[in-house]
Amino acid sequence: MAAPALLACDWGTTNLRAWTLDDQGAVVSAREFPLGVSRIARSEVADAFARQIRPAMAAEGVPAILCGMVGSNLGWTAVPYLDCPSTLADLAKAMTDAPGAPGVRIVPGVRYTGFNGLGDVMRGEETQVFGWLAQNPAHARGRHLICHPGTHTKWIVVEDGRLTAFATAMTGELFAVLTTHGVLATDSRPDGGTAFDDGLAASGDGAALAARLFTARARVVGGDASPDTSASYLSGLLIGADVAATPALLNLAPATDVVLLGDQGLCALYARALDARRVRTRTFDGQAAAVAGLWALHTAGILS
Amino acid sequence: MAAPALLACDWGTTNLRAWTLDDQGAVVSAREFPLGVSRIARSEVADAFARQIRPAMAAEGVPAILCGMVGSNLGWTAVPYLDCPSTLADLAKAMTDAPGAPGVRIVPGVRYTGFNGLGDVMRGEETQVFGWLAQNPAHARGRHLICHPGTHTKWIVVEDGRLTAFATAMTGELFAVLTTHGVLATDSRPDGGTAFDDGLAASGDGAALAARLFTARARVVGGDASPDTSASYLSGLLIGADVAATPALLNLAPATDVVLLGDQGLCALYARALDARRVRTRTFDGQAAAVAGLWALHTAGILS
Repeated sequence: MAAPALLACDWGTTNLRAWTLDDQGAVVSAREFPLGVSRIARSEVADAFARQIRPAMAAEGVPAILCGMVGSNLGWTAVPYLDCPSTLADLAKAMTDAPGAPGVRIVPGVRYTGFNGLGDVMRGEETQVFGWLAQNPAHARGRHLICHPGTHTKWIVVEDGRLTAFATAMTGELFAVLTTHGVLATDSRPDGGTAFDDGLAASGDGAALAARLFTARARVVGGDASPDTSASYLSGLLIGADVAATPALLNLAPATDVVLLGDQGLCALYARALDARRVRTRTFDGQAAAVAGLWALHTAGILS
Repeated sequence: MAAPALLACDWGTTNLRAWTLDDQGAVVSAREFPLGVSRIARSEVADAFARQIRPAMAAEGVPAILCGMVGSNLGWTAVPYLDCPSTLADLAKAMTDAPGAPGVRIVPGVRYTGFNGLGDVMRGEETQVFGWLAQNPAHARGRHLICHPGTHTKWIVVEDGRLTAFATAMTGELFAVLTTHGVLATDSRPDGGTAFDDGLAASGDGAALAARLFTARARVVGGDASPDTSASYLSGLLIGADVAATPALLNLAPATDVVLLGDQGLCALYARALDARRVRTRTFDGQAAAVAGLWALHTAGILS
């Protein structure tokens, strides 16, 4: 077997996913490490790469590209954000050498000055977006709305291959915080049942979320629902409000088709919420897109 | 000095405020007890009244009226909710004797089936609303929108002296939970500075709150603002979104004049948020309204 051509890493806040790719960009090996930048000290990042990731994945000399929070001020080194609009070529040119590690490059994040002139930022999702474009060359033209659901759900606009705008909704984080703390705290877990749809219905047009959230309490206090269904209801309410209202911040009609990119379980919940609003969705795997994006950055770097 | 005519208590989740009133309804004495129903066991509520409140405030035989969470299933006894629309006379008739305590009556809460057919509930605010009406007889006619800010802000519609509709926004609770947990957690405190106005501006039309909240992080991560201002910004953002969007759930135009009733510090923040939207406000003290409401219930009970 030939030596791997690239060590590709999606190094996030919680976890690190690493792949070795052959000279066609196909995955040769894959591993996950519990070494997200929030779990280790900043001073340990370079060492973790040299002592744990590199030896487990690929010999010295195999080039590496890392995307995600590893490029933040919590990570290996702070790589400045690129401003929108940005292309794959812009990203490839702006990759930064990891200090003290020849052949290791870190992908910049992307910044967008959006509604009210307030800046928004991403690190990692941009690589998945360009990977999705590389996987789907038919979408190189035209405008596409991509939703990357998660703790911080990203809604991203791509136009003619350029990442032009995005907005971040703290939907997953609100769910985590509100089911753990305060009057909506619950021992229940989302179960895929009809309470999710009740939550979707209660999300309305996505306005007045602080009031709509109180219905999660009132429906239980008033005896209309079992506390066992609270997490599902809250999940539907928060995701419903997100899909109803966030695209408008990007001046997109709610009816725009949506590309769902990311964790398959979360994408399925967003697809259900969008389907309830008669919005068509197509779902793509986020990890596969990350691999494709890191490979595309590697080949763009070689060609440029 | 004549014996007091009434022992009036606003017995909430955290605290209990007690007043003795003379035969004109004027306050003779006032005390606060750290005996909110969340702080003591349900089985201790009657005992707390008999051993701590009654001896400190008024002799046996002086009638007592209690409003607030003391009438919930966490309190002395669960007093069923009255449905909207309800009047002061309805409330007075539905007062329930406290078990084992002759002459002690508990005010019912009020329930409203609002947007999407979902029920909403209050306990305590209704007494302040009817107290405000008793204090301001000129408002006995016409429609008024009352905002009672707090952990769970209540927006209440009064029409010709009847409480007809309301909606609850978890604005204070979202502020408490989000400044304590998750990526928006901050050691800063609201300081009355301009970051509050920046938060108001970022609240927009009150839609897409999960996305607007992320601006509280992005403005700091992007270097546009000091973390010291995060709590003020978040306060402005949450209150701004509340005043922008919750009245619409009651089919009220955003420009409706608002009566602010409650804690004076919180009312001042809401007044600032409403003023920024060119909505006129008048502010009234919540504790004085509670006293007036309990007295009005007492006299309504005597007259009926």
